[in-house]
Amino acid sequence: MKYSEKILNTPSSFIRNILKVTDAPDVISFAGGLPNPISFPIEDLQKSIHCAIEENGAKLFQYSTTEGYLPLRQYIADKYKKDYGLNFNPEDILITTGSQQALQLISQVLVNKGEGIVMEEPGYLGAIQAFTLAEPSFYSVQLKEDGLNVEQLENTLKHNQHIKFIYLVPNFHNPTGITYTKDNREAIYEVIKKYDVVLIEDDPYGELRWSGEKIPYIGAGRLENSVLLGSFSKIVTPGMRIGYMATKNKELMNHVNTAKQATDLHTNIFSQMIIHKYLVNNDLRSHIEKIVQLYKTQAETMLNAIAKYFPTYVNYTKPDGGMFIWVTLPEGTSSLDLFYKAMEEKVAFVPGDPFYTNKSNVNTFRLNYTNTSPEIIEEGIKRLGNILYSLSSEKQTV
Amino acid sequence: MKYSEKILNTPSSFIRNILKVTDAPDVISFAGGLPNPISFPIEDLQKSIHCAIEENGAKLFQYSTTEGYLPLRQYIADKYKKDYGLNFNPEDILITTGSQQALQLISQVLVNKGEGIVMEEPGYLGAIQAFTLAEPSFYSVQLKEDGLNVEQLENTLKHNQHIKFIYLVPNFHNPTGITYTKDNREAIYEVIKKYDVVLIEDDPYGELRWSGEKIPYIGAGRLENSVLLGSFSKIVTPGMRIGYMATKNKELMNHVNTAKQATDLHTNIFSQMIIHKYLVNNDLRSHIEKIVQLYKTQAETMLNAIAKYFPTYVNYTKPDGGMFIWVTLPEGTSSLDLFYKAMEEKVAFVPGDPFYTNKSNVNTFRLNYTNTSPEIIEEGIKRLGNILYSLSSEKQTV
Repeated sequence: MKYSEKILNTPSSFIRNILKVTDAPDVISFAGGLPNPISFPIEDLQKSIHCAIEENGAKLFQYSTTEGYLPLRQYIADKYKKDYGLNFNPEDILITTGSQQALQLISQVLVNKGEGIVMEEPGYLGAIQAFTLAEPSFYSVQLKEDGLNVEQLENTLKHNQHIKFIYLVPNFHNPTGITYTKDNREAIYEVIKKYDVVLIEDDPYGELRWSGEKIPYIGAGRLENSVLLGSFSKIVTPGMRIGYMATKNKELMNHVNTAKQATDLHTNIFSQMIIHKYLVNNDLRSHIEKIVQLYKTQAETMLNAIAKYFPTYVNYTKPDGGMFIWVTLPEGTSSLDLFYKAMEEKVAFVPGDPFYTNKSNVNTFRLNYTNTSPEIIEEGIKRLGNILYSLSSEKQTV
Repeated sequence: MKYSEKILNTPSSFIRNILKVTDAPDVISFAGGLPNPISFPIEDLQKSIHCAIEENGAKLFQYSTTEGYLPLRQYIADKYKKDYGLNFNPEDILITTGSQQALQLISQVLVNKGEGIVMEEPGYLGAIQAFTLAEPSFYSVQLKEDGLNVEQLENTLKHNQHIKFIYLVPNFHNPTGITYTKDNREAIYEVIKKYDVVLIEDDPYGELRWSGEKIPYIGAGRLENSVLLGSFSKIVTPGMRIGYMATKNKELMNHVNTAKQATDLHTNIFSQMIIHKYLVNNDLRSHIEKIVQLYKTQAETMLNAIAKYFPTYVNYTKPDGGMFIWVTLPEGTSSLDLFYKAMEEKVAFVPGDPFYTNKSNVNTFRLNYTNTSPEIIEEGIKRLGNILYSLSSEKQTV
């Protein structure tokens, strides 16, 4: 039997595959991207379940509309207004089965085989997977410390006519932890506004900030073809798979809605109503503040441990929020080799390879700190440091 | 901005669009395909929610595996064994976001642009939508009273080399209510086994039988490339969007799993655990029996009303289960015209057009009886009958 070209080209998630190996209870894993389970507001969610059933009865259990639960869409529109001064209405919001689904739907709606998508390098591997199903040409634009390489972005857009969209994660980027500066965002906006492309700003981690001030989005509110993606996975629960897309472009929204119908009819309404009830009946701000304090402590623990245990020639990012630190080894060092050595010492992380569309055996890797206690973080980083030192002394003896 | 060819070719759901018109409280609607909300086991589900949280805590709220919750997959495998003697293991089962998602995933995995899909004529419009995103060539094979036109199926497979799969709904078919006979299934099997194609048997309504005996599947257990699709939407709740796919073909399963990862990471684990708890803690048989008795009464009421109020030249199917009756008007009569006249009298149904891949202005339409009380069914069919009589007298006077 023959399979489609698109599925043969789609990378199976390296992360999910290594998670199977690294899931053993004696392994210290910095590999996943899981929220800390102690951050789930289980008791308040239980109250919300009870409340939602009392109020809505059978409606929680029946088929529902493709666009999503209206009060939840209203809540999201209001939140964008309150937090960013953006003028969204409920009809500008579509509820998706996690924001992952929005990636798949938008690429299906915009991209014919061979047409272009601009990705950050490195970029979110789930996006690489979702987009690959649309059989695009990928164009990579490098990430720098302050955000995207704007010159390279402009060159890419200028010399390739068939680019349909640009996908960016400007806040606490996955995998690097980088946040685009305000100046970098302005420079990106000035470039993109000259081209007929869609800008997708994916923002699952934006609320998880412990340092610095919230920065306005690049395109939302001023680019005609602006799309924002958001999610309740990192601030309430990922298990319910509730994400959303926001755009003022009605034609695009209409097509994505049709694709959503064809894909799964509608998002779980039971979970939509529960999440909505949770959001209106609880103090979300103070709940998020607890998560932020938790992750801040974990991040600082990891950064301090890296400073203490890693050789000084190792570079790494220092995030202002989010879930990840990105480590860069000297040129020519393979993080995949390091991964296998680390697994022998029962420590796991994600080697950089799956975050690139056209590179392998890279010298970078991703560390997650949100799902491990400070003591374990210290121990895991210490072991990794020892391996790095032993690798560099091996090199010197060669 | 330009959109992809595949989305421009995807029909927006006629049903969902007319549901917006027919949703007014004074309209008698036979248009939807909704389960009767009085069939949802709300109290038992509430107990299951409580139980699932007590037992699993944070696991209900965390990210989970793409293939789905293992105990639920075990339950489904066991049920196939018990009900049909089929030898499925948990690794042969993938949990999907409703069985609608399985249609989208399988077509993405198998079909390159222009390759063939065999559909029933008429066929499930949600499948037409899902498959269209893979840009296939559709081949229609007619439905007859006893099932599929086997001769036409054989000719289609013989003369078209690039057909990747055949999609059938053999039990209480949507839209026609037809059930394939045992002989018809055998004849289909004898044809398909000679070709390198996948057979998808979609069975959302199979449990809803009030007349006759359960009939074995066509391909499951004997065709290498057999896929079964199932769902909890019609027997527990559609709001939680829990469907599944079963196949012994490991390579196919592996590719569908990758497509699922790329599409929405995994199905809502919170709902999977609740549904599982409901299934193991309750007597599903007796719950289904209640739904079956309810729908039997509604179907009989509608069939009796049709016999009483419709002109005798109108043909219609008499289902042994499921949710639909299919009506055929005399050649040359447009069911879309009838639809507009019926809406003036505040009665709605679905004209046949969206159930065909290459026909319009057809003389057929679909009636749903599961979501309306017997009194309302009688009144609605009476109004439709009056319109049909007035149409035929108009014709006679012309």
